[in-house]
Parts: sequence; structure tokens; C-alpha cells
Amino acid sequence: MEKAIYYEDYELGSVRETMGRTITETDIVIHAGQVGDFFPHHMDAEWCKTTPFGQRIAHGTLTFSIAVGMTANLINPVAFSYGYDKIRFIKPVAIGDTIHVKVTLAEKRDHPKKTDMGFVIEKLEVFNQRDEIVLVTSHVMLCQKKNKKEQ
Amino acid sequence: MEKAIYYEDYELGSVRETMGRTITETDIVIHAGQVGDFFPHHMDAEWCKTTPFGQRIAHGTLTFSIAVGMTANLINPVAFSYGYDKIRFIKPVAIGDTIHVKVTLAEKRDHPKKTDMGFVIEKLEVFNQRDEIVLVTSHVMLCQKKNKKEQ
Amino acid sequence: MEKAIYYEDYELGSVRETMGRTITETDIVIHAGQVGDFFPHHMDAEWCKTTPFGQRIAHGTLTFSIAVGMTANLINPVAFSYGYDKIRFIKPVAIGDTIHVKVTLAEKRDHPKKTDMGFVIEKLEVFNQRDEIVLVTSHVMLCQKKNKKEQ
Amino acid sequence: MEKAIYYEDYELGSVRETMGRTITETDIVIHAGQVGDFFPHHMDAEWCKTTPFGQRIAHGTLTFSIAVGMTANLINPVAFSYGYDKIRFIKPVAIGDTIHVKVTLAEKRDHPKKTDMGFVIEKLEVFNQRDEIVLVTSHVMLCQKKNKKEQ
Amino acid sequence: MEKAIYYEDYELGSVRETMGRTITETDIVIHAGQVGDFFPHHMDAEWCKTTPFGQRIAHGTLTFSIAVGMTANLINPVAFSYGYDKIRFIKPVAIGDTIHVKVTLAEKRDHPKKTDMGFVIEKLEVFNQRDEIVLVTSHVMLCQKKNKKEQ
Amino acid sequence: MEKAIYYEDYELGSVRETMGRTITETDIVIHAGQVGDFFPHHMDAEWCKTTPFGQRIAHGTLTFSIAVGMTANLINPVAFSYGYDKIRFIKPVAIGDTIHVKVTLAEKRDHPKKTDMGFVIEKLEVFNQRDEIVLVTSHVMLCQKKNKKEQ
Repeated sequence: MEKAIYYEDYELGSVRETMGRTITETDIVIHAGQVGDFFPHHMDAEWCKTTPFGQRIAHGTLTFSIAVGMTANLINPVAFSYGYDKIRFIKPVAIGDTIHVKVTLAEKRDHPKKTDMGFVIEKLEVFNQRDEIVLVTSHVMLCQKKNKKEQ
Repeated sequence: MEKAIYYEDYELGSVRETMGRTITETDIVIHAGQVGDFFPHHMDAEWCKTTPFGQRIAHGTLTFSIAVGMTANLINPVAFSYGYDKIRFIKPVAIGDTIHVKVTLAEKRDHPKKTDMGFVIEKLEVFNQRDEIVLVTSHVMLCQKKNKKEQ
Repeated sequence: MEKAIYYEDYELGSVRETMGRTITETDIVIHAGQVGDFFPHHMDAEWCKTTPFGQRIAHGTLTFSIAVGMTANLINPVAFSYGYDKIRFIKPVAIGDTIHVKVTLAEKRDHPKKTDMGFVIEKLEVFNQRDEIVLVTSHVMLCQKKNKKEQ
Repeated sequence: MEKAIYYEDYELGSVRETMGRTITETDIVIHAGQVGDFFPHHMDAEWCKTTPFGQRIAHGTLTFSIAVGMTANLINPVAFSYGYDKIRFIKPVAIGDTIHVKVTLAEKRDHPKKTDMGFVIEKLEVFNQRDEIVLVTSHVMLCQKKNKKEQ
Repeated sequence: MEKAIYYEDYELGSVRETMGRTITETDIVIHAGQVGDFFPHHMDAEWCKTTPFGQRIAHGTLTFSIAVGMTANLINPVAFSYGYDKIRFIKPVAIGDTIHVKVTLAEKRDHPKKTDMGFVIEKLEVFNQRDEIVLVTSHVMLCQKKNKKEQ
Repeated sequence: MEKAIYYEDYELGSVRETMGRTITETDIVIHAGQVGDFFPHHMDAEWCKTTPFGQRIAHGTLTFSIAVGMTANLINPVAFSYGYDKIRFIKPVAIGDTIHVKVTLAEKRDHPKKTDMGFVIEKLEVFNQRDEIVLVTSHVMLCQKKNKKEQ
């Protein structure tokens, strides 16, 4: 769905939550193949038995990418994705874990130069099925302001 | 390959460059399918003709994940990936663009509490075939120190 | 998104349209691999040059499955998918064609036995970028009625 | 294999059965990624535990597409696929279920206008490993007649 | 299809040819991801421009695997695949090349110890659309003999 | 990594071992889809229960391709892959088996005509997690000689 949401429309502190998704062995194998990372942490079940976690874990880039994808529910033609800050891998994600994402509108700030634009920062918290946080990051969007003169 | 590289072994300012990889339509279709983001920016060639860029672009998470995967050449048993800072999407990546990554050892700092550990930050710069930077980020690793007393 | 829509809520004649999606060579290769149909119509560019259409075409099941997937935007807990009627392959879909789906609420009828249920039929028309219909079908949903007595 | 089978050659009531195929978690994840349907019925093992069926189920379009693919064993240059009638989802297909298809030549009828063509309808019944029917549909083929005058 | 073909049934010199299949960029990307070989010969279009061939080529294991798969049309319960001899990569396979396989029953020989078994060797020749041989190999099958005494 | 290794540099009897990799159901499903081999040995868990091995096995071409990919750690610009000899399928590989490859420099011989070239043969032995050999083959490389006169 496409809908214009301007800088002023984003409400500080507002929260939305995504549906859940189970991270499968298939996801890990496809991601390894897409990014070319076949480290034993992800691909070698025998080797993993010798680690503290005891089993294969999802690539950090996999959990991050799926979590970001899960939050993409709306095309906003007056905003674009500027980047991500502080991705932190809090806990490993195992095969069979089910994750969902809580998105909090955490911050708004004017663009230092462009008076008709502002940064909107969404905090993403990725939880597993035990409500443990496994990954956090902040999505930085650059948005148009509705009423340029008032800025 | 597995090789122990301790905090002290990382040399500030050292640089390595990866091989190149062409981002294909296949990569975008598989990534859309993996993360569930079928936005027209990535999937609708007709719609993209109406945008300034004029063609489909890679998901930011795709360029990021492939770039990170391209730098993963060594298993270091005395370090682990702590996270990524400041992912910035500088330029769009089109189908057929060939990217490579320049990795610079940018920073080292002690862990504030664990005296036997330190943070090592690699700066990743992703270039396309015209030597334009398309994405930057910083990889934060947490590494063991070799000689704990000397720290 | 999850939202309960009862039999009575569906409005005859209402129309929605999906975003577009370009059918790629990748989609055809992945679908062939998923369903095991490697007929030359889909996989052999040389052979296809000898046919009237002159090029590889998407599997009928591919166009159907993607079109159905494109219409799935809402989880309705009081309805479920009963089946599809009259899939008709009107025109071939070539690599690079961009399709979108027009969904029309075409029919409602009581369930012959279950007085608290009714059938809701959505007509799906799949168009290519030249606004030619390439596939039609009817989606049959079985929905709960809101007010059972009034039925 | 390519072999011309004319309208007259199809024998009413003839039956063929396909080999079996186990529907895997991989099939579901790849199909979700191909068609863009990440509904929790297919992707969220935790959510599925709260449903009557208790586990993830295959997309209807997945079972249909694989079943159709399993029956495609012969290229008939004098026939083409016209469409499918009455797809009905009889029972859910779970991860690990093994399906096979029974194909019965169910009906033949003249084309209303083209005297040199006729419709041949194959009934497809998809069974699981407990010999329960999980999906039925009818494949409508349009076939050339061998001896046009005799028709 | 399953059919018992005994050692004696294989006719020396008999030939069969497969349908064709176009090797796509998708095939190469998926194969790289499956086997973990991201060498620039297959993945870096810019680097390939500097090579004599000038473009990306299929992995040898990809052409071999697809060719072998194309010949697998019959399940023979009284034979099994013993191995392959002398795979030779004669010419590179480029994206867009269409290959087919000619299978010649090249040799039969008794098993040195098991009197009820014999080796049957099929020669596989893989051609591109210009009828150039790109790969050859010999498939070694171990087959049961029909009439053990007569051997 | 790219590094020139000449014919003379290869040391007879030298050995290297790869990391391990668990062969997953996903690998088998993707390989079946890539090569078009949906034989019940790989795809039908119920049918496999009736066989001596009792479960689905990896395609021979899958184990071979992954094993070869696992050994590809270095781009040698003065050598190229000439082919493979004597692939032998020693034991079946089941879903969940973890394989690794031992590579032994087994043989060197002059090219019969080109005095500046020689053949270098690596023996590949693929082991499972019980240290059983499951597949062997010999990789034939054609390498440039460093000092052409001395040969």
C-alpha cells in the first residue's frame, strides 16, 4: 500500500508490532548461498555441537534482513531509507526460533541543512518466542516536511 | 580458514579489498523472497521507469548482506561480531552493477568493563564498477586481548 | 494485518488493485525447480524461437500462484480459502512482463447447508503492462456470517 | 518426451498415477518467497500451535502447483493447457506429508465453434500418505482432432 | 517412470537425446550459492571482461549436474549409479547457451567378482546450440543380470 | 584470494582439509530443482522407508558439487580445471550428515605435447561425520610450468 506520511505525521512514541516468522534451516542455507558465508557457525551441525550454544545459528545479516523486511508494510513516497544505526546482535537465533519485531518511533530531528526535510528514527527490537530481545537497530528515514514555511 | 587474531594483532589503518561480485536480477528476486519485501522499487520494472533512477534497485539489506559476506574470509576464534554501526545507503545499486568492498581497520578501543577484551572497528566501503561508494558501514568486533596484564 | 471481515461486510462490486510485479527469468527457473516442470516452453530459449510466441513463457501455475500471492494482503480470521474456479490462461506471460491483479467482489451466496456461512467470490483478473488480460480466475472464500439469525 | 496425442486418442476413464513427493519446509519457504505470501499459517510455527491444525501448512497454490508439475510427463504438440476448473482444498498439507496424484480422463467434449478441436478434461486427485484426498481439480486441455471430417 | 532394465537389455551403440535447456544467470547464481564457489569467473561480469572468453561462465559442476539430471528419465530398480569417469570440460558454457545431451550406450563388461552383475557405461556428450561439445563424461552403472547361469 | 602456483610448486603428497558442512533437506530440494531430478530416492520419504537405506539420500551430483566447491579456496591464474576422473559413490549421504573433504596432491605428469604445461592431480576424499568415505574423485588440473626450458 502506498500512503504519504510526512515528517509531522510521525508520532513520537507510537508503536507497531509485526506478525511472527519462524527462522528455518532453509532460510540459513539460502542466506549462506546468497551472501557467500559458509562459516561453520551456520553450516556445520557437528562443529556447532562443540560450541557453547550447541547448534547452528542464523547469520546476523539474515536476522537483520528478515526483521527489516517484516517491518516494510507501507510505501511512503515522501520518505526514503537513509540507513541503519547500531545494529547489535544480542542473542543468537537458532533454527526453529520464531521472531517478531516491535517498532517504536523513537526520535525526530531536523535535517541540518535541508529545511524541508527531517530525520525520523524508528527503533527496531527483534524478539524471539521467549520474548527475549535478539537484535536491535535504529532505522533512519529522511522525510519531507508537510509545511515547509513553518519549519 | 581458522586463525586466532588477538586485539593487539589488528593493525590500525591496514586495508584489505575483496574480489568483485555482480549484483544480478536473481539476487534481488531471491532476497525479496527471503525477506518478504516486494516493494516496486525492487520488483516492478514498469513502475521504476517512472522514478528518477529509472530502473529496479537492490534492497539496502541485500547490498549490505552481500558486502558483509564478501568480507568474511577468516574464522577468528578469539573474536566475535558485536554489531554494525552507521549503515548508510549512499547510491542505489542497479541490476548488473559489480560491487567490491574495501575494509579499513579504523579504530581500536578498550572494553569499558572487561579488561581482557577490546573493540576493533573495521570500516567497510562498498564500491561499484565506477568506483563510486554505494554503501558504508562499520563492523564492530569484540576481541580478546593476548596479554591481559599488559593492557 | 489481521482483520475480521464477515460475509455481510463484503460489498458486491467493490474493486481493489494490487501493485505490479515483473515476471523474471529467475521466477521461471525457480518455479520449474519447485514444481519439476522443465518443458521447453519455459526452459529452452532455442526451441521457443521455433514457436509462434518466439520466446520462453511463464508456467501457468507460476502466473496463477504469483497473482494469488499478490492479492493476499489481509488475514481474515472469519473466512478461509475454499478453492478457485475457472482458471483460464488467456495470453502467455513472457520474461520481463509486469503483471498486476484487479480483484472484483463478484458474487455472494448462502452456503446450502450451514446457515451461519456464505460463499464470497472474488474475480481475479491479471493484466500485463499493456493492459491485456493474461489470466482470470475466481477465488471462492467461505465466510462466517455476522448475524446468524438474520440470515 | 514429445508425442502427439489427438482428441480421439484420449480414452475416457483411463487412469495414471504419479510418483510421490514429500512436501518439505523448504518447499513452503521457497514458495512463500516466490509468491510473497508470508501468512502465519505457513511461516509462524508458534502461531500455528494456537490453531486447530497445530502446525504450519502448505500454501494452496504450492500443493496445486507441485501436483500439476508432477503430472507433466509428456509434451503433446497437438494440445495445450486451457485452464483448470474447481480447485478445491480438501485437507491441509503439513510439512513432511507425501503427496501423489491420480489422473483420470474424466470428460471429452467438442469445441462449440472449432470443429477440428475438442476439450479433454483430466481430473486430478491429490492424495497424502494416508490416502486422504487433499486437493482436487480438473485440467482442461484443448486438443486437435485427428480426422476432422469424421467429427 | 519405473522399469526394470537388466544388463542384457542394454543395447550397445543405442543412442538417446534429451530435450534442451538454456543455462541462465539464475542457474549460475543458485549453483554458486549451493556449492559456495563465488569465483569471479562465474560471479564478476567486470572481471570477466578482462578474460579471453569475455563473460561469466557456468561452473563445471553446474553443467555436469544439469546434464546428468537431464538424462535421468527412468528409474531402473535393477541398476544403480556406480560413478562417473573422465569428466572433461571441453568448452565454456556462457549465460544464455542452450545445452542438450546425447547418451550413447558405449560399453558393457562383466563385474570381476559378482557373476550376477555387470557394468554398463553410457557416454554423455553435452552440446550447446551451435552443436559444439562442451562437456563429456561416462556414466558407470552397475546392473543385475537377468539370467545368472548363462553368464 | 588469487595466487599463482606453478606446476613445480605443487608438492606431491601434500594434504589439506576443508571445513565441514551439513547436508540439509534444503540442499537436496534446491539441487533437485536445479538439475530436474525428482527421483523418489531424493524426494519421497515414504518410498524411501521401503528401501534398505530407509531414508532420502543426496543426489550424487549434489555431494560431488558441494565437495568440489568446498575445496575451491584459491584462484590460481596459471592453472585451470581440466576435468575430474573416477567419481565413485561409496556410501549414501543422508539428510543431516556432515561432510568434509581431504585433498591430497596425488600425481604430477608432463603434458604429452605442450612442454610448458603439466597435469596436477588432486585426490578428493569426502568423509561424513563418522569418518566414513562417501565419495572419491580425482581433480585434474592443467598447470603452467615456471621454467619452461628446464622441463
